Parts: sequence; C-alpha cells; structure tokens
Amino acid sequence: MTRHFNFCAGPAALPTVVLERAQQEMLDYQGHGLSVMEMSHRSSEYVAIAEKAEADLRSLLAVPDNYRILFTQGGATQQFAAVPYNLLGNGGTGNYFETGIWGKKAIKEARHLFGAAHVAASSVDSGNTEIPREEAIQLSEDAAFLHITTNETIGGLAFDYTPCAVRPDGVEIPLVADMSSDILSGPLDVSRYGVIYAGAQKNIGPAGLVLVIVRDDLLDRARSDMPTLFSYRELAEAGSMINTPATYSWYLAGLVFEWLRQDIGGLEAMAAINARKAAKLYATIDASKLFSNPVAERNRSRMNVPFVLADDRLDADFLREADEAGLLNLKGHRSVGGMRASLYNAVPEEAVDALVTFMNDFEQRRG
Amino acid sequence: MTRHFNFCAGPAALPTVVLERAQQEMLDYQGHGLSVMEMSHRSSEYVAIAEKAEADLRSLLAVPDNYRILFTQGGATQQFAAVPYNLLGNGGTGNYFETGIWGKKAIKEARHLFGAAHVAASSVDSGNTEIPREEAIQLSEDAAFLHITTNETIGGLAFDYTPCAVRPDGVEIPLVADMSSDILSGPLDVSRYGVIYAGAQKNIGPAGLVLVIVRDDLLDRARSDMPTLFSYRELAEAGSMINTPATYSWYLAGLVFEWLRQDIGGLEAMAAINARKAAKLYATIDASKLFSNPVAERNRSRMNVPFVLADDRLDADFLREADEAGLLNLKGHRSVGGMRASLYNAVPEEAVDALVTFMNDFEQRRG
Repeated sequence: MTRHFNFCAGPAALPTVVLERAQQEMLDYQGHGLSVMEMSHRSSEYVAIAEKAEADLRSLLAVPDNYRILFTQGGATQQFAAVPYNLLGNGGTGNYFETGIWGKKAIKEARHLFGAAHVAASSVDSGNTEIPREEAIQLSEDAAFLHITTNETIGGLAFDYTPCAVRPDGVEIPLVADMSSDILSGPLDVSRYGVIYAGAQKNIGPAGLVLVIVRDDLLDRARSDMPTLFSYRELAEAGSMINTPATYSWYLAGLVFEWLRQDIGGLEAMAAINARKAAKLYATIDASKLFSNPVAERNRSRMNVPFVLADDRLDADFLREADEAGLLNLKGHRSVGGMRASLYNAVPEEAVDALVTFMNDFEQRRG
Repeated sequence: MTRHFNFCAGPAALPTVVLERAQQEMLDYQGHGLSVMEMSHRSSEYVAIAEKAEADLRSLLAVPDNYRILFTQGGATQQFAAVPYNLLGNGGTGNYFETGIWGKKAIKEARHLFGAAHVAASSVDSGNTEIPREEAIQLSEDAAFLHITTNETIGGLAFDYTPCAVRPDGVEIPLVADMSSDILSGPLDVSRYGVIYAGAQKNIGPAGLVLVIVRDDLLDRARSDMPTLFSYRELAEAGSMINTPATYSWYLAGLVFEWLRQDIGGLEAMAAINARKAAKLYATIDASKLFSNPVAERNRSRMNVPFVLADDRLDADFLREADEAGLLNLKGHRSVGGMRASLYNAVPEEAVDALVTFMNDFEQRRG
C-alpha cells in the first residue's frame, strides 16, 4: 500500500487517518455486525452517527443556533437551482458575482429556470484575476439575494472580504455563498450569510453529498413549484431525511469533522497550516522565471493554485515527471490548461514541500 | 469482526465479498496511490471504473442498445419529480398505479409539481394486498405515461405481470417503473419499459445513487422548466457527468454488478436463489399459527416479506430475541408495524435458514 501526494481539485485527497478508520469499520461498525452502508437511516446507531457529524460541524464553524444544517445531494450544481427556488418565493431577481466558471454556472441555471439573473459585479474585465471591490457592487432594485463563489476552484481566485448586500432602497438582502472549495479551510463568521452551501468533494468527504447552512428566517421565502427534495424547509423539518440520505457519505464527512477537531485542533489551527502551505507554493512561483500565477495578490486562493510554465512545450514533461515522483493530478482544468495544485485541508504540508522541491529541481534542469 | 444477518429494508445488506474488496482498496486503488474517493471523475482510472460498471449492468440486464443508463442522485424520491419533468413536455397527465406507500408518494409529487396525476388502478380497496389485474387499468385520455412500483417495499406487494399501456385512443404510452427494491433480483425484459429507475440502497449499493434506464426516443419529451441535473437528455449526453457524480457509490455499484456476474453467475442464478429464500420463509409463515402475511399469493414479494404475530404483545420479545440471535432489523415499517424480513440479493440463504429456525423455535416456546 502506497499513498501518493494528491493535488486533485476534486474529488480530492482525504485524510489518511480518516480512510484508515473507514477501512477498519467497513465490515463491522463498532461491533454492531454490519457496515454503516448497510444500516437503516432510522436506526439508533445511524442517527447517532448523523447527529454527531452535525454537532461537530456546528462546533467547528461556530454555527449560530438560528441556522439549520442540511445534508443533501446533487453537489453544488443542484444548489444553483435550489437557491433561487428557495429564495425567490416573494418575487425579485437573484443577484450574482461573476468571478469565474462556477459563478457563471450558477447564473446560467438561474436564467434557465427563472429567466433572469442580475450580474452585480464581474471580474471578467480582469480576466478573472481580481475580485471586484465592495464599492463596485451594483445590486438591482429588485435584488432578492446576492450570490458569491468565495473561492473559484478553476481560476484560483478567492474573496478577501465579505460583501455587504444592501439594495439601493436600503433593504439588506441575504448573502448566499458557494463555499465548495474553501469551507472549513479556516474560521468563518456564519452570521454574515443567509445561505452557505458546499459540495463535499473538496474539504468534506465523498462527491455527491452537499452541505447547506441556512438561516431559519429564510425558510419561508420559497417558490411553491419546487421539487420537494430541494426545499430547505422540508429538509430542515425532516432532519435531512425526507428520503434516505447519502448515509455513507454523511458518515465519512463526520469522520473528517472529527479529524479537524481532534487531530488538527480546530479551524484556526487548520488555517495556519493552510496559510503556510499556500505561502510556500506562491513564494516558489514568484521567485521563479519558469512558473507564474496571474491572480492579484489579495485574491490568491489558498486552496487552488493555478500556474503556467513560461514554455508550454514543457507541460507534458512536467506532468509526467511529477507523476513519477508521486505528485499526482497537477494538470490544470481542461478549460484553462496549465497546471493547478489544490492544497485542500487533507493535503499535508509535506506534500507542498515535495512539490516545491520538485518544481525548483525541474526549473534548474529545464527552465 | 462479526457479520450478523441483516434483514434491513434499506439501506440494506451488501455482499460481504464486495465490502472486503472495498476495504482492501480503500487507501490505495490497485497501486495508483490513492482511494477511489480521491480520484477525479475525469481521470482515466475513474472513467474505466465507471464504464465497466455500466457495461456490467448492461450485460446483466441485457439492456438493448437504444436504452441509456444514467447514474444519478437523490434516490427514487428525486425521480418522482424527474419522471414527469422529462415526460410531460408535450402536455398530458401522468397515470399511476397506486399500490402502496411508494406509489402514493410518486403520485403526490406529480400533483405537487404539475397539479394533476391520474390513478389508473389502485389496490387500496384490497388494503394493498393485491395488485389490480391488467383488465382493470383505466388510463386517462391524455395519459402521457403509466407509472408502476414493481415491488412495494413496505407492503411486500409485487407485480406478477408487466402491464401494457395503451390509451383509449389506441396510442401506446411509455411504461415507467420504480424498481428500487427488486431490480437485479432476476432477469428483466427492459424493452417493455420506457423508463426504469431504482434507488441503489437495496440491490445495488450505497444510498443516494439512483440508476435510470431510459429509451432514447424519450429524451425529446422534456419540459423546459426543469433543473438541469434532472434532465435525462443532459445526463445522457454528459455520460452522467454534468457535474461530479457520486463517484464512490458508482464504484461500489460496479463491485456489486461484478459480484452478480462472477460470483453468482448472472440474474437467472440470482432469481433461483431468491425464489428458494422466499419460498422457505413464506412456507414457514403459512404453516404457522403465530405468524401471518396478508398478501395475495400471486403478488407476494420475493424481496420484502412483512408478517405479523397473532398476539402483538409478543412483538417486542420477538425482536429482542432475534437481535440477540444475530438476526437484525426485522421490525416492520413504522407506518404499518409488525415485522418485515427483506431478502435482497445480498442476504444469503443461510440467513433465511437461520431466521426460519428462529421463528419455529419462537413459536414453539411462545406461540
């Protein structure tokens, strides 16, 4: 058994100790004589697993009591539809930050379903290398919510502030955040948001599961023509068990939350490790003549670091040699090319050290 | 490590050899240095896993070439919405068999979203103990499809024929089947159906994953106001990867398909085993004065066998003693009470033998 260093953008690395625990419990969960996968979601054993996962997440993020935590399915893409279904019941238009491919997809789904979405701020003019500053936000008069993508996984572009969402008429509207690729990377003031959602496959657990954290006064704004499984109210009232949830993924997410609390020591400790990891890689890139990253310094992502080689004819060699050195999945997204190193929570600092050593060596030999 | 006999209705037992294989590959899939959970769904390793799963399923069910197989999410409940979204684009009304709790839920979601659903046949008058015969079907004039639940998991009621769906005007409409709790329990003539769907958590794999098998001429009947992830056409064109699918569940489903092909020897062999298991349990019930099952013989489910005790004050003792004997999850659904033994593919014949021995012993002592 060998574990390589995995820089995949998602589905992404999971902590080795979490996988070891899952492996150990695979056929017989704590003497109950069956796998977690084989348990009724209504059984006392499973309900205890599910409740502990929620409690650990609530503790990690200091989620206030007036927020519900939902464990649902379909990834962030399903939330691109669920958010407007749940928040446009009183009319109005969804307002969006357009900061890269994921923000654009959220806008596209809102337009597909409801005919309209207002772009309140866009980073397109900067080539998606800089997040517009707060004073540039232009909400529509009928804005019902403001949607941001806190970290664009493909562009490696991250917010450096939390926007205030106040309409021209002075009404504050809910801030909605897709945090798929940076949730749990550090502490978070949940109270600034109306809805937070995150696909699990970066910092939480297996692909498919999606977390939603929603302020409970927003459960009454839903359209009536919504598939039942999309309803935050129905999910909240059923404890995320309208039907059988993705029980095994929920269990694995719980193991990750436990790892963050017990092994890492919470999100401040996690943030410090993530800051060191990102600083090492950006320093290597900035000191190099071969590698470069185009993102404005204030918006550089700590989770996804895209970079290009000065001579793209070296790309294939770089990737092949990295792979041979046990540094996996450094290829950039097919839509942008180049390289990308994703440094999620479960990617250890040693992985970044190994990557930096490899990059320096590669530049010396080939740069 | 102990493995008990697990009669859970779902999430249900998985084959021990499948869990052992998953356990062995948990941290390092076949020398690639990472878990299947940590792989990009676009990687060549993962695409090979996904394609093999689909090919094995196609082979097991002899799925004709003009049918697409989709691996999606949200369980059967999401399909209660997705089916009418995908099939009502040309207008008309969904027609339904009402044969128990799951059929009713499908009807309820169609009415919620589209205001109407026609009950073409109902087993309510029989107390859900008998499926209406084919001549009793009354399709509406505008019927767009006929939906059946081939096996009602809670009532233990199963179809003993495949309905023809022909409207009063002679037009044949697609037959849609929720096969969540009996798919892969035996051979199936897929060509009789327009759409087949099945939540994974009984005979396929982990909860959350749902399979859809759809005839390709039906991809053009969708409403335009549908969440993108619900679209059979979009899913088919993207190879079920509009966004990141539930990769680990898909992999586990593939291991189950491989087990059915290689270890069991295909669906005819599986059907023979399932027939023996069910016959043993029903024979025990029918020969007993303590236990009884109310379902008409021709509609008795081979997968879910509900039964009651003549004196329900013995229920708690029965369940406690069964549990102590390593016979887990025999409690009936909370909506109907009594007992239920689910005999899915992964429940071995020895489990039924042990259950029958226990029931006979219990009756002798307490009956």
